[in-house]
Formats: sequence, structure tokens, C-alpha cells
Amino acid sequence: MPLQDYMQIISVDDHLIEHPRVFTDRLPKKFQERGPRIVEDERGSHIWHFEDDIFPYIGLNAVAGKSPEQFGMEPLRFDDMIPGCYDPAARVKDMDVDGVQAACCFPSFPGFGGRVFLRAKDKELGLASLQAWNDFSIEEWCATAPDRYIPLALLPIWDIEASVAEFRRVAAMGARTISFPDSPAPLGLPSFHSDYWGPIWDVAEETGIPISLHFGSGSFVPGFSASASGLVTGENFSSVAVRYDDGSGLPKDEAPNAVSFTLYACNLMWSATDLLFSGQLQKHPDLKFMLAEGGIGWIPYIAERADAVWSKHRYYQPIDFHARPSELLKKHFWGCYITDDFGLANRHAIGIDRICVEIDYPHSDSEWPNSRKVIAESLLDVPDDEAHKIVELNARDVLNFPRV
Amino acid sequence: MPLQDYMQIISVDDHLIEHPRVFTDRLPKKFQERGPRIVEDERGSHIWHFEDDIFPYIGLNAVAGKSPEQFGMEPLRFDDMIPGCYDPAARVKDMDVDGVQAACCFPSFPGFGGRVFLRAKDKELGLASLQAWNDFSIEEWCATAPDRYIPLALLPIWDIEASVAEFRRVAAMGARTISFPDSPAPLGLPSFHSDYWGPIWDVAEETGIPISLHFGSGSFVPGFSASASGLVTGENFSSVAVRYDDGSGLPKDEAPNAVSFTLYACNLMWSATDLLFSGQLQKHPDLKFMLAEGGIGWIPYIAERADAVWSKHRYYQPIDFHARPSELLKKHFWGCYITDDFGLANRHAIGIDRICVEIDYPHSDSEWPNSRKVIAESLLDVPDDEAHKIVELNARDVLNFPRV
Repeated sequence: MPLQDYMQIISVDDHLIEHPRVFTDRLPKKFQERGPRIVEDERGSHIWHFEDDIFPYIGLNAVAGKSPEQFGMEPLRFDDMIPGCYDPAARVKDMDVDGVQAACCFPSFPGFGGRVFLRAKDKELGLASLQAWNDFSIEEWCATAPDRYIPLALLPIWDIEASVAEFRRVAAMGARTISFPDSPAPLGLPSFHSDYWGPIWDVAEETGIPISLHFGSGSFVPGFSASASGLVTGENFSSVAVRYDDGSGLPKDEAPNAVSFTLYACNLMWSATDLLFSGQLQKHPDLKFMLAEGGIGWIPYIAERADAVWSKHRYYQPIDFHARPSELLKKHFWGCYITDDFGLANRHAIGIDRICVEIDYPHSDSEWPNSRKVIAESLLDVPDDEAHKIVELNARDVLNFPRV
Repeated sequence: MPLQDYMQIISVDDHLIEHPRVFTDRLPKKFQERGPRIVEDERGSHIWHFEDDIFPYIGLNAVAGKSPEQFGMEPLRFDDMIPGCYDPAARVKDMDVDGVQAACCFPSFPGFGGRVFLRAKDKELGLASLQAWNDFSIEEWCATAPDRYIPLALLPIWDIEASVAEFRRVAAMGARTISFPDSPAPLGLPSFHSDYWGPIWDVAEETGIPISLHFGSGSFVPGFSASASGLVTGENFSSVAVRYDDGSGLPKDEAPNAVSFTLYACNLMWSATDLLFSGQLQKHPDLKFMLAEGGIGWIPYIAERADAVWSKHRYYQPIDFHARPSELLKKHFWGCYITDDFGLANRHAIGIDRICVEIDYPHSDSEWPNSRKVIAESLLDVPDDEAHKIVELNARDVLNFPRV
């Protein structure tokens, strides 16, 4: 019985669904007509509109409260979802049922890393919308229950100076993590190898705020079928099951979305490996990354493999000659998992201080309303002190979210 | 001391460098001028020419005999390589030094899965060149020492009927495995989800011949920087360190090739997951895949993750409702590794009958001439019967390569 009552579950990865007034309540009048707004279409669906674009899924995969047999239909209206999806007070009640003390909630409509704002044609509107989201996240959603929500914010990553300013602004407001694309490269921005991001990493170090890299936030969906068709994109996550068609008349060969769902972690293997060999971790020794929805069971494999490559290939390319990648990985990265028994069995190879749990409410990977029970069962063979670190203390530590 | 003298090391993944006469010795006169031929350029480099294309690296990464400090220069002439790279009799001596009994050798110039022949503008020439390579592989290279070489062949995958015919032809000649692209999709062919490949899988089942999926044979190189720039390609493996440049004048952000080297396994995670959810394993219950140069430490993670996805997402998409992906993985796949201590520590989660070793001579991952020593050290804590399976018996079994 390692999950003692005094151990509080801190989820470093949940998702909120923006209610219809998040932006209209906050944007100045001049942006009301082009800013994010909910429109009910002729079929009764609630649809986000932003500038001239339409975003058909208000809460993609927001299936909390449904059984797997009911999965597959996206919620098309707010009343297709349980209120905990979009109402922070109702969410706290759902967390109580689930045995979860606190949650860090990623965006829905903006994309996990704010990609929708990056795509805004009017960058002033994009920035205003992003700041509205941050204000909503910190001052409305998280302020509902400060001991239950861990504030997360986004950056206007298309503009480094604005990103630095926004980072400082949200840090002063109490943000505990920044959701950053799992890779900026597929978004058309410089990769993690570039010094371009240095001013952002500087603020992360100064404030001690970790950067959360959530699978998919860089818009890349893993899998050969998707990438082969040139759809190196996850602009709309409903499109993960793509139709590969070169007009040849060959048989259909779409991948079911089970493939990309299974491969989520590969994105974060790529992200972590990019960062390990980027030189940025040497330039920013206090930088911290959380690999959201990345699982943990693969970490020792990639660490060992990175060391093997480093040991043979550091003589002719500009990678750090002295620091083993596995040491950088243990120093700078936190693994985050929903369920991962293999990872837990290998927790000491990963680092007992480097593992956090995720609930992923209201998405399909979530075990809600049985999360505490499922986590407790998975930790039956884990000593108390280690279980406590994994479910609570590591998250409180890295996110600077102490018990009150 | 688990690696007893009676245990013979069988490498399921080495590489041969084609000598200059492989094709000119075999192609009919009409193809001599356009078929693959070595031309010495004005700088003294040996260059493969095929049709109007030029392939600058005769033996990319053929560094056997060099120390890591000397890596990075590709061999530009045959006399830049040790003879074991391209001479099968010299190779046997190098295997003796290395303590290796037998090796299965993949192509170099044609790409690991024969991609260069697929790209031929004259498909008749492409087929003739591919058959010439197969004849060379089986009748010249492997025939040099039939107890030391495991014949590998390629298929003309641009033509299913020709592939079936060639598969039967090489099977009759003694081929023990087929090198097939790790994914056909990036090559512009139907993905593993398509029934298109069924006739090939039928022959694999009839003959009992396993399909080897070697990292990179489908031309896809893992990593965000590469894929972001639209370079979903490994047409020339020297280009793995790509320059991402959108003309914005932003700082350089190339990934060093250590990134893609570290991430090789991700390709095979993608391949295996595609196949697990393709339905093809149910249609072809005796199909066997070997994941060449894929490592093994990640396998239990992906198996568990695939099961988790399957358990929640099989109600609304066309994936097998009854067979757990992890069971399909253990039944149909063999993991192949060069060094992977984490994988060995978790060998029972992978399946003790599903692990084979690779030497990777003459590439940089190889431990030559110390392979037997390195393997022995890695197996110090592994019981004799398990070590014997891993280094020898599993390979002999799956490749139908008995001791003589």
C-alpha cells in the first residue's frame, strides 16, 4: 500500500477547454470581430472562429465521463462535454472524485503550445489573444482554486522580444511553467539547435520556471503514413488518420489513429535528443524541460544510445566533448507519464527525482475517475518514499508549487 | 563467463561494399553504359554512376579499422577502406579476428532496401541491376564461405508481380532474408497498411523467410530538423545533418548527425507500430520481421503503450478487436541490437527468443575487432542458455541457417 493518504497526486498534464467568453471577455473592442469567438453553425455545432479561420473541434478528444465504447465522436457542443471540461469549479469536484490534488492544464483551442496564435495573420491580434489566454489561465481558471491548479502560460514565439516580455509578465502573475512547442521546427521556426531561443531560456533560468514540451505542440504527428503524404502537421488533431493518396489508384493505406497515439513518445525522444546535442544545455545550465505525455519507459534506452553515439561521434562534429548526454538528460529533463509500468519498473535507471505523473483529464488516455486507484495499483511494489516523489514531490519541486 | 566457446556469434546485420565489377560483370551489354559503374573523377575519388545519377559515397561510414578520432571522412576510394569491406574472403578473416561466425550483409550502393533500383528511370535496367546485386550477394559474396554468410536479397518493390517472381527466384537460390524498406511510404509506395504488399507477404510465409527492416531503408531520417525542412528523405545518407533555412535570415540551426544517429530506433518503432495496427499480421499469421539496427531497449515500452491505446481505441477504428498488439509484437518481430545493456537487462520483457545480435561491420557502430569481447562483457550476468539464444540460436532459427 505505498500510496499513503498523505501523498497528494499532482498532475503535470491535464487539459482545459476554453469556454466561449475566454477571449470576448478580454480582447479590446477592435479585436472582437476577428478574435477567437464561438459560433453555432446550422447543425448546432459550436465552432471556434479566429480571423477568417474555422476550428471545428472545441474540445477534441474531451471524452471524460464516456466509456471507450463511446469514444470516437468529438464533442461538437459544450453540452456534449461534462462541465469539468470547461468550468474550473466543476473540474475541482471531478479532481476530488479522482483523488487528485492539483493539476496543470494545457490549452485546447490554441493548440497545446499556442500554435493557433502563431498562425494569426494579424500579429497584434495574435499577441492580444495569447495574452488573453494567459490571463484566463492564471487569473480565472487557476485563481478559482490556487492550491488545486498550477498556472501554465504560453509565449508569442514568433517574436523573441515579445516572448521575453510575456514570460516576465506571466512569471510575475504566478505562472509555474511555459508550454513550448515540442519542436519549433515544424512550425517554420528555428530548431532547438539555434541560439535564437536563448533569450527565452535566459528567463526560464532566472525565474526557475521549467519549460513543458507537450507531445504534438509543435504540430508534428509521428508515423510514416502521415509524414509520407507531406502532412508533417497536426494543425488539426482530428487529421492524424490521414489518407495517403498519390493518385496512383493503389489500395488505400491510411494508418488508423492508433498508430500515432502509440507513437506519441517518439516526438519527445526527438525533442530531447535535439536538445541534448544542441549545445543549449551547456549555455543554459539551469534550464529544465518537462516531457509532457511522453511516457518514461523509453528514457534509459535513448540515454544509453545517445551516450554510445556521443562516445564515437564527438570527434568531428560540434557536440559537447565532455558531458555525457545521459548526464545532461538526467539533469535537465523530467519524464511525465500517465500509465507506464515498464517505466516504473526501471525508475532508478530514469532517476527517481525525474518522474512525474499525469492525469490527462479530459482526454481519452485519462483514467478518470479512477486515476488514484490506477496509480496506487501501479505503485504497489514501489517504496513509500519513491512513490511520494513520483506522485507529488517531484512535481511540487520542479514546478515550485509548494503545499500551502 | 556466459559466452562459452561453443556459442557462435551470428550477426544479423552487417554491410558489404559492392566492388566495382558487381554489375558490369553481370549486366547484358545493352545496359553496360547506363548500369551501375565506378568512375574515377578528376580528384581520384571512386564514384558510382547509374543512369545519369551520381552517388558520391562508395562506402558511406565504412570506417572499420579506424578509430573514432578518425571518423567523419567518408572513404572516397576503395583503397581508403580495409579489404574486408568489399572482399568476402578478406571479410571472413576480419570476422575471425572479431570472433564472429556468420554475418548477414546488407547492400551499400543500392541503399539498404534497394531504393536506388526503385529510382531507376528505366525499370528494366532497374530490375536487371537488382537481380545482378542478388546474384552477387548469393552466388559470389555468400558462396565464398557458405557457413559464414547468410544470404540476403532485395525485391523490385515497384512491381508486385516482379517482386513475387524475384522472391521465389532468390529463395530457390538460398536467400535467407529479404531486405525490405523500413517503410515503403516515404518512397512513394503504399504504406504497410495496404493490402498491396500481400502477395509478397504470401511468399514470405510459404518460404518461411523473414523480412528484414533495416533502419533508413525507407529513406526516412528521424529528427525534427530534417523533417521540418521537408527533407523527409535519406536519399543520400551523408545529408542527415541538414541545413534548415526558410530564407528568414534567422540563426543557423542544423542538427548535428548525432541526433539522427541516436534516433535510428524511432524509425523501427514507427514500422512496428504501423504493422501492429495494419491488419496484415492477422492476414499473414506466419509473417516474420527483423528490426535491423533498431535496438531493443524500447520494445517493452512501445508494447505496453500499444496495448493501452488498443484497449481504449479499438471500438471505433478498424484495428483487431481481439489480439493485443503486445502479443502480435512478440509473435511476429525479432529485435536486433549492436549494444543495448538496458534492453538486455529487460530481455524477458522483450522475449528471450526474440533477440538477435548485430555486428554492423564496417560501420561506425561496430565494435570490430572487439565484438566478441564486448558482447561477452554485456552478457556477464545472463545465464548460458539465454546468452546462447541471443548470440546464436535465435538467429539460426529465424533465418533458417543451421549449423553444418
